[in-house]
Amino acid sequence: MAGSTFGKLFRVTTFGESHGPAVGCIVDGCPAGVPLSEADLQPALDRRRPGQSRLTTPRNETDQLEILSGVFDGKTLGTPICMIVRNKDADSRRYAEMKDLYRPSHADYTWEAKFTHRDWRGGGRASARETVGRVAAGALAQHILSARYGIEIVAWVDQVGTLQALVDRKTVRTEDVDANDVRCPDPSTAEAMTEAIQTARKARDTIGGTVACVARNVPAGWGEPVFDKLDAILAQAMMSLPAAKGVEVGSGFSSATLLGSEHNDPFSTDNGVVTTTSNHSGGVQGGISNGMPIEVRIAFKPVATHFQQQSTVTRDGEETTFQAKGRHDPCVLPRAIPIVETMCALVLMDASLQQEANRAQPFPL
Amino acid sequence: MAGSTFGKLFRVTTFGESHGPAVGCIVDGCPAGVPLSEADLQPALDRRRPGQSRLTTPRNETDQLEILSGVFDGKTLGTPICMIVRNKDADSRRYAEMKDLYRPSHADYTWEAKFTHRDWRGGGRASARETVGRVAAGALAQHILSARYGIEIVAWVDQVGTLQALVDRKTVRTEDVDANDVRCPDPSTAEAMTEAIQTARKARDTIGGTVACVARNVPAGWGEPVFDKLDAILAQAMMSLPAAKGVEVGSGFSSATLLGSEHNDPFSTDNGVVTTTSNHSGGVQGGISNGMPIEVRIAFKPVATHFQQQSTVTRDGEETTFQAKGRHDPCVLPRAIPIVETMCALVLMDASLQQEANRAQPFPL
Amino acid sequence: MAGSTFGKLFRVTTFGESHGPAVGCIVDGCPAGVPLSEADLQPALDRRRPGQSRLTTPRNETDQLEILSGVFDGKTLGTPICMIVRNKDADSRRYAEMKDLYRPSHADYTWEAKFTHRDWRGGGRASARETVGRVAAGALAQHILSARYGIEIVAWVDQVGTLQALVDRKTVRTEDVDANDVRCPDPSTAEAMTEAIQTARKARDTIGGTVACVARNVPAGWGEPVFDKLDAILAQAMMSLPAAKGVEVGSGFSSATLLGSEHNDPFSTDNGVVTTTSNHSGGVQGGISNGMPIEVRIAFKPVATHFQQQSTVTRDGEETTFQAKGRHDPCVLPRAIPIVETMCALVLMDASLQQEANRAQPFPL
Amino acid sequence: MAGSTFGKLFRVTTFGESHGPAVGCIVDGCPAGVPLSEADLQPALDRRRPGQSRLTTPRNETDQLEILSGVFDGKTLGTPICMIVRNKDADSRRYAEMKDLYRPSHADYTWEAKFTHRDWRGGGRASARETVGRVAAGALAQHILSARYGIEIVAWVDQVGTLQALVDRKTVRTEDVDANDVRCPDPSTAEAMTEAIQTARKARDTIGGTVACVARNVPAGWGEPVFDKLDAILAQAMMSLPAAKGVEVGSGFSSATLLGSEHNDPFSTDNGVVTTTSNHSGGVQGGISNGMPIEVRIAFKPVATHFQQQSTVTRDGEETTFQAKGRHDPCVLPRAIPIVETMCALVLMDASLQQEANRAQPFPL
Repeated sequence: MAGSTFGKLFRVTTFGESHGPAVGCIVDGCPAGVPLSEADLQPALDRRRPGQSRLTTPRNETDQLEILSGVFDGKTLGTPICMIVRNKDADSRRYAEMKDLYRPSHADYTWEAKFTHRDWRGGGRASARETVGRVAAGALAQHILSARYGIEIVAWVDQVGTLQALVDRKTVRTEDVDANDVRCPDPSTAEAMTEAIQTARKARDTIGGTVACVARNVPAGWGEPVFDKLDAILAQAMMSLPAAKGVEVGSGFSSATLLGSEHNDPFSTDNGVVTTTSNHSGGVQGGISNGMPIEVRIAFKPVATHFQQQSTVTRDGEETTFQAKGRHDPCVLPRAIPIVETMCALVLMDASLQQEANRAQPFPL
Repeated sequence: MAGSTFGKLFRVTTFGESHGPAVGCIVDGCPAGVPLSEADLQPALDRRRPGQSRLTTPRNETDQLEILSGVFDGKTLGTPICMIVRNKDADSRRYAEMKDLYRPSHADYTWEAKFTHRDWRGGGRASARETVGRVAAGALAQHILSARYGIEIVAWVDQVGTLQALVDRKTVRTEDVDANDVRCPDPSTAEAMTEAIQTARKARDTIGGTVACVARNVPAGWGEPVFDKLDAILAQAMMSLPAAKGVEVGSGFSSATLLGSEHNDPFSTDNGVVTTTSNHSGGVQGGISNGMPIEVRIAFKPVATHFQQQSTVTRDGEETTFQAKGRHDPCVLPRAIPIVETMCALVLMDASLQQEANRAQPFPL
Repeated sequence: MAGSTFGKLFRVTTFGESHGPAVGCIVDGCPAGVPLSEADLQPALDRRRPGQSRLTTPRNETDQLEILSGVFDGKTLGTPICMIVRNKDADSRRYAEMKDLYRPSHADYTWEAKFTHRDWRGGGRASARETVGRVAAGALAQHILSARYGIEIVAWVDQVGTLQALVDRKTVRTEDVDANDVRCPDPSTAEAMTEAIQTARKARDTIGGTVACVARNVPAGWGEPVFDKLDAILAQAMMSLPAAKGVEVGSGFSSATLLGSEHNDPFSTDNGVVTTTSNHSGGVQGGISNGMPIEVRIAFKPVATHFQQQSTVTRDGEETTFQAKGRHDPCVLPRAIPIVETMCALVLMDASLQQEANRAQPFPL
Repeated sequence: MAGSTFGKLFRVTTFGESHGPAVGCIVDGCPAGVPLSEADLQPALDRRRPGQSRLTTPRNETDQLEILSGVFDGKTLGTPICMIVRNKDADSRRYAEMKDLYRPSHADYTWEAKFTHRDWRGGGRASARETVGRVAAGALAQHILSARYGIEIVAWVDQVGTLQALVDRKTVRTEDVDANDVRCPDPSTAEAMTEAIQTARKARDTIGGTVACVARNVPAGWGEPVFDKLDAILAQAMMSLPAAKGVEVGSGFSSATLLGSEHNDPFSTDNGVVTTTSNHSGGVQGGISNGMPIEVRIAFKPVATHFQQQSTVTRDGEETTFQAKGRHDPCVLPRAIPIVETMCALVLMDASLQQEANRAQPFPL
């Protein structure tokens, strides 16, 4: 069915299979007049693309973006923006033997249960390659949010295995994140994480972790109660990412262990602006932004393709064993950074347009 | 804006403020021919209503449901079902003094930042009283899912503060959950939880926790990639609940610490049916159900209204202190159980209709 | 399925069967801060209600509106507004004999083909009584459009049978329309129309006609290409009305007979504002309002319930004859006036919010 | 805003400007397993493309379709199908002088009023070139409707100027329609129409007309009351077409002049199937299909670009005259045929999936 669209006013529809002709998206609802060319969005795709470091899959895609519509004379028209990236380095040979069995903890079995007909090449649409379209759209959203509201969105690798980074959410910058291949702005933990990922790879294994993301300078008042609360839509957005297993906002699961007197964020004022002196709320109260930094954390399971032998069944229901081949990331985390920022930007961009409609013309009676 | 609707085919729109005339919902898209009367749904509302035990707020509402449309001759018509519950025991007096200040970690400030005009009586629409409409709709969904597919949805209090229950997700039943006031099917932990809640109340404080929920007998193939993955929509649904701060599916945040070789769920067969021998996936792979039990866990922060003195600011931006009055739950968890089951049922009901449309008439060429 | 909701930002969901407990609606997405009480909306319902003149059905409903949510302290909250009207004078006895046959050109057969289970009392949800909810919501929209933008929406009976009124669309006012029972602001034609309706009634027959509607002072720029063009959504809105068979905007079907040189509307300026010297476009060009009056015309078939004998079949497929009983309008046109204005207001209200979101904050780069 | 998407379950999003790099669409929600290649859809595009006969614009586009996603191994995957057509023969030179004035009865002024920034080359997105994406998607829908249900959709030129064709709606076939360039299956009227179009062209003028469309073999029960009635969505679909000014279903505007006793369609049975002996309803009653042929008629105004001198204003508000250049159709009707069929197919395809969801698994209680 029709689940490939995200957002109500800033609507993104992605398309594409891992080994099909192309991947990409249409953005409908982008404001008119935004200066835009491929060069504005390519850097985000470059951060996501495979083959960029020794910690990622060697599949080599340049992921060159082409804008097919919606831009004229260097500015957006307010019409749908179709953006595509051709798949170039797809290598389907290594997948042929997988077409008749289900790789454990992949989507092979469930997609077949749902659609009967399945693209077994590289995971088809269940591949993380689908996120190319998201990143292009999200980079556009970030571009607008930054110019209109001065919003800064920064994500980083917060945890790999049991290694937890120590990061100051108020000040962390993209430069700090990109200072190392693992994209953890805490240099000593970054080093340990790199080692942990290399160790897993050598053991023909993969490893999980968490990503943290902060959005600063979001105005108070964004998010639509009841079902479209800002944190609810953030949760949907993040959980829709491949390999995501958990999402938390602000205090998250740690809130379960606290008393109300410990958890509440006292209000204060700062130069006439209402603020809170702590931020357990993670910038969202009652589903609406309160002007404090929005803080999200996402758990990613270890990549399902490791290279040890596994038990599984064939399409005919016979038990068998499976040994993965192909090119894969030992850890999804470093490449997840631009993708998490993307989803955060898409959520905020949509919320911004909704709130602009809400606030249109104070009622004059 | 328009955020009070959930679902694409089984669409629920809730309405109502805590101290307004009524709360309730419209369900549009309910299949025709379902046997239905108020008596089928009232038990779920009774599990949610305030004043039901010593662990909940003393606000006393009988929450008697009235169906205004969509049912004729004891069966649903396929037309919108409007259901209302009159508010009867609303006591706005204790809120009058709060209308000019912002209660910490409540939605007072953000709703005012968003809408300017705010209903300060009992939290207005940000009150958990809004969930009456959800529970009525969700009970209807559970009624249908159970009859059509034999689906069982069971939620329970999994954690209060640092007290963690030990529960067998494969076998736990509603009777076990409802065997005690705290709704934890692990009797000895339940007792300790009860004590912890009473201790918090006596200390004029409140306490957080987690709820776990399992849905058994969900067919493989439900959930719509990419953005409407079953786990993504579950995450939105659960995070849209008042006081929710985190959601996880299957292994959740613990997946971050695992290796791929530990985390993957090997496939096997059981009487010709494909199953997995572990369930770290929590019943969802690639956003689609795989036939195994769907497992979700939600973190709830401690209730924001405790009775100790707090720092805050007035609407005019002056710093002040605040001392809560009124009637409040010391712990939201026991009453959250039917609400979590509700949201799970609404997600599955919608996914079921989408998959029925997908599977319509195999293509004959 | 879920077809009872209209609008994307100003979302109206109606509910209710003709002889069920109540009819009404929820409006989600209404701006906050709008002064509102039942008294603001009751006059529109009074214009729609049965039994108001000798030209309408004698079913006597006072149609007293009750607002259940979304309003506090005399102003809207920005939350869902649930509004209900209890059905009081429903008389189902006369319908009992119809439950086993299909009334010609009614929805009995199609609703049963679709839903199997059917409410045979008074047409159930297919009754024009469903429009109570629309009118309440539309009156609210008109209230806002008038205050925010000075928009005037006026509909009138333009044609009954072959009698065609002569009306100046630039100046016609609601007072002119309501000056007679038939709601045609051309007094001499109104008289002839009244006679034609009475003649039809005496012949135990019914008669069709057209309604015209104009919306003045709509700003240029409303309407969302491509599929949500202002005229496309107007067409959906009008065709969704009971008994509607055709819709045209501006020159409509007469445009088919014209040459481009006759049909085009030359641009001119009027005190610095761009206008057109003719209005064949009916105020919409390329699906977007151009600032000229928006002009729509709707064809309504004669009421399907006449009192002559008709051929039909029973639910068992046996041919039979049918003789209507009950209380019915001989001509739907006079009561259609507030309903047509309603749909026009709902379309414009939604378009206004969409355009406010579009125009939010000119891009500052 | 986001108005380029049509349908709820079979969702089509079109993109592209007349002189941009490409036009096309994404279809999300197409059933899996449908045999499909470009060759299945190209014939519909060929019927729509410019330059196909002496009655159309000489702009020469081969409109070669490329499918970028959603198809594997010759069958649809159930994932989004992105289809593009490169613009090749765009000639923007003749439009340069139009960028500073508004062409009468075009969308130049309104798009600029809405979006400020406007693509003046060939009408930008307001060009009928946008319909390439619709036709590709609609051809896919027709392909499925035909195979699953045996549905036949046939449209034809029904009227040009005052010339009205005589066509038997029960039997007319596509071969009859395509037997002449004007696409009117009444040969003698077709000849007169061709002459009328040539006469208009020689007079440097353009001419309007109507298109009729019939859909046969549509099962009873399709269409979703209240706002998403089958005829209401058809009206939206047709009115969203460039140059459309009116839509009618069945008796349409002629119903206004009839009595109920003349207009009603008596029920009868035909080999056990319920039918009606007349079809004033046009196959839709109460917004739901009744199994009889669905009959729609659409009025198209004369093409706005004629080659006589016209009065208009510049972007600076100065009055001026305008003389069109470029390549244009003297009459939009012949090329509108595949586009009208397209929209009809998209409406029916979506309704079919909705009804399949409705009818899923009769309730077993």
